[in-house]
Amino acid sequence: MVGGGQLARMTHEAGIPLGIRFKLLSDTPQDSAAQAVQNVVVGDYRDLDTLLAFAEGCDVITFDHEHVPTEHLHALRAEGHAIRPGPEALVYAQDKGLMRARLTELGVACPRHRLVTGPADVSRFAAEGGAASGSGYPVVLKTVRGGYDGKGVWVVRSEAEAAGPFRAGVPVLAEEMVPFTRELAANVVRSPHGQAVAYPVVESVQVDGVCDTVIAPAPGLPEERATQAQELALTVAAELGVVGHLAVELFETPDGRVLVNELAMRPHNSGHWTQDGAVTSQFANHLRAVLDLPLGDPRPRAPWTVMANVLGGDYPDMYQGYLHCMARDPQLKIHMYGKDVKPGRKVGHVNVYGDDLAEVRARARHAADYLRGTITE
Amino acid sequence: MVGGGQLARMTHEAGIPLGIRFKLLSDTPQDSAAQAVQNVVVGDYRDLDTLLAFAEGCDVITFDHEHVPTEHLHALRAEGHAIRPGPEALVYAQDKGLMRARLTELGVACPRHRLVTGPADVSRFAAEGGAASGSGYPVVLKTVRGGYDGKGVWVVRSEAEAAGPFRAGVPVLAEEMVPFTRELAANVVRSPHGQAVAYPVVESVQVDGVCDTVIAPAPGLPEERATQAQELALTVAAELGVVGHLAVELFETPDGRVLVNELAMRPHNSGHWTQDGAVTSQFANHLRAVLDLPLGDPRPRAPWTVMANVLGGDYPDMYQGYLHCMARDPQLKIHMYGKDVKPGRKVGHVNVYGDDLAEVRARARHAADYLRGTITE
Repeated sequence: MVGGGQLARMTHEAGIPLGIRFKLLSDTPQDSAAQAVQNVVVGDYRDLDTLLAFAEGCDVITFDHEHVPTEHLHALRAEGHAIRPGPEALVYAQDKGLMRARLTELGVACPRHRLVTGPADVSRFAAEGGAASGSGYPVVLKTVRGGYDGKGVWVVRSEAEAAGPFRAGVPVLAEEMVPFTRELAANVVRSPHGQAVAYPVVESVQVDGVCDTVIAPAPGLPEERATQAQELALTVAAELGVVGHLAVELFETPDGRVLVNELAMRPHNSGHWTQDGAVTSQFANHLRAVLDLPLGDPRPRAPWTVMANVLGGDYPDMYQGYLHCMARDPQLKIHMYGKDVKPGRKVGHVNVYGDDLAEVRARARHAADYLRGTITE
Repeated sequence: MVGGGQLARMTHEAGIPLGIRFKLLSDTPQDSAAQAVQNVVVGDYRDLDTLLAFAEGCDVITFDHEHVPTEHLHALRAEGHAIRPGPEALVYAQDKGLMRARLTELGVACPRHRLVTGPADVSRFAAEGGAASGSGYPVVLKTVRGGYDGKGVWVVRSEAEAAGPFRAGVPVLAEEMVPFTRELAANVVRSPHGQAVAYPVVESVQVDGVCDTVIAPAPGLPEERATQAQELALTVAAELGVVGHLAVELFETPDGRVLVNELAMRPHNSGHWTQDGAVTSQFANHLRAVLDLPLGDPRPRAPWTVMANVLGGDYPDMYQGYLHCMARDPQLKIHMYGKDVKPGRKVGHVNVYGDDLAEVRARARHAADYLRGTITE
């Protein structure tokens, strides 16, 4: 697996029972996954020679993030390496411009969008929206490559504000600001031989552009709309030739439609609940898919599972918080990543499952807040 | 953790979510756990200097097996290291003679037993049983130290047969051959501050002295007898000062009593079902105990969970068997240890859970047999 973040750490964890000999390419020996994996190569994933040397002896290469240059993926494949997901699929998770074009071609509903060349062009894009009143602002601007967790994304309210995103000199995509009621995620896993499974559609609650809470399944989602979202994700996986886990982040609109926000072709924060709440976790199924093994049952093990991210706060060491949280809730599932605590950084998550959503959600919220230090009792 | 076997491998797996920086002392770099753990020291656990060097920087030392010499455990403690379980408890899992004496002192029911000096003494022990007919043979002989999985245990039917076990020149314990109806295991976890939890009592089916299948909970066990077995295990844990997981292997007799067979103070084969069948696995709770963290809920997540060991058979590589087993049963949980396959060697296990015991048991049996190669469809 290329990339030493928490997704690789948790994929390794899921691979231990399968007897997988997991090999990691990590930026540093201190990265989250590098602390837990036996076979670690420290190197730069942007360097083709490093990638080629790393790939020697691997049966299959998969990824913790989308940042490996697409041309390197093609070069690895040309050398005979199995790359899953392959570059022709992964490029749609790497490049938001290509993703929007391809999804639109497939008839998949997306926010109105186009590549923009500068602030004046953003104003033209805003006006094209045919807004009943005003300028058509606010507009969402995104760098087409490299963003994550709200980085590389701006909500701009005027042409003056629109100048910022262009300063880096990288291509910028403009999107309408969708008046959504909430965010959903439809997660599916697809294998090279075409088997696919769909997890229950979840609600993803974002705070400041960062995923805060995931509720599985999405409360009050009509079954028909849930099925529609799962079918959408399965279609995208099949049409794009995805192998492994595909997360389709969705906006649910007041008139009951779902629009695609983002794609991720790897285990995803919206699927962390599956570790304790589903028969087969997203990490185990991602591994099974990239190894072309039959996929595991994606169904839930409890009526409700809630995942709450633990963000860095005032405590440099969160271990002391385990005492209170574990004593208070013996069913609580803590997942920490071994990362240095920095304010606002995702350093772990908790999962809670049970029969009563309000209670399950309150328990997850309490643990995440206590570990962060937002509350002290 | 001292010892690189599958118990250490699965304990590491359980420690990843807790952000534990797991360090391993392994006999070789190829051992089961050494393949999966980042921080591996290769060395001999029988060498005190190796142990002392290994212990540097560890917050607490725990064990994958019982074979570290008791005097070394005391020496480690004298140097200020936290040893959990401590030597004063662990010695009762190391030395079956001391274990029998101490349990008898505590009033815990055991098979009739005493240390024996030679074949003639075994015959005297047999006759002391007051057998209504015959010589009192068969008798069970055990080396007081070093046995496991049927090794170091003999069932002898005559004085001539009794000679063998004495040839190694180590102390031998004689025990009556208990006419048990089945074997049970009562597993508990205890922390330094005295918190303890009890898992459901399970039935353990042995074949040729090796654990074959574990059924959780033990079918048809009257609640009163289950509670009695749990209380027995909690008493033993408290009186012996055990820290961590304690497995109490029990004989259930035709007249409804339970007698202690063996003790193990570490995660145990009879607790592997907890990985997929309980809220908190034995591995997670062993870690929480030795770290003096509050313990997790030991309750089951399904009405029935069955664990079946996968033994080495004809296939040097069992990976191909995954295809059939995973396709046939998408809820199957495979746990392989990365060990070289040798006939009869424990190389993995499977867990299956569900509502119908006969069906759950058949699914586990099928998968274990298929992976071994006993069946081919």
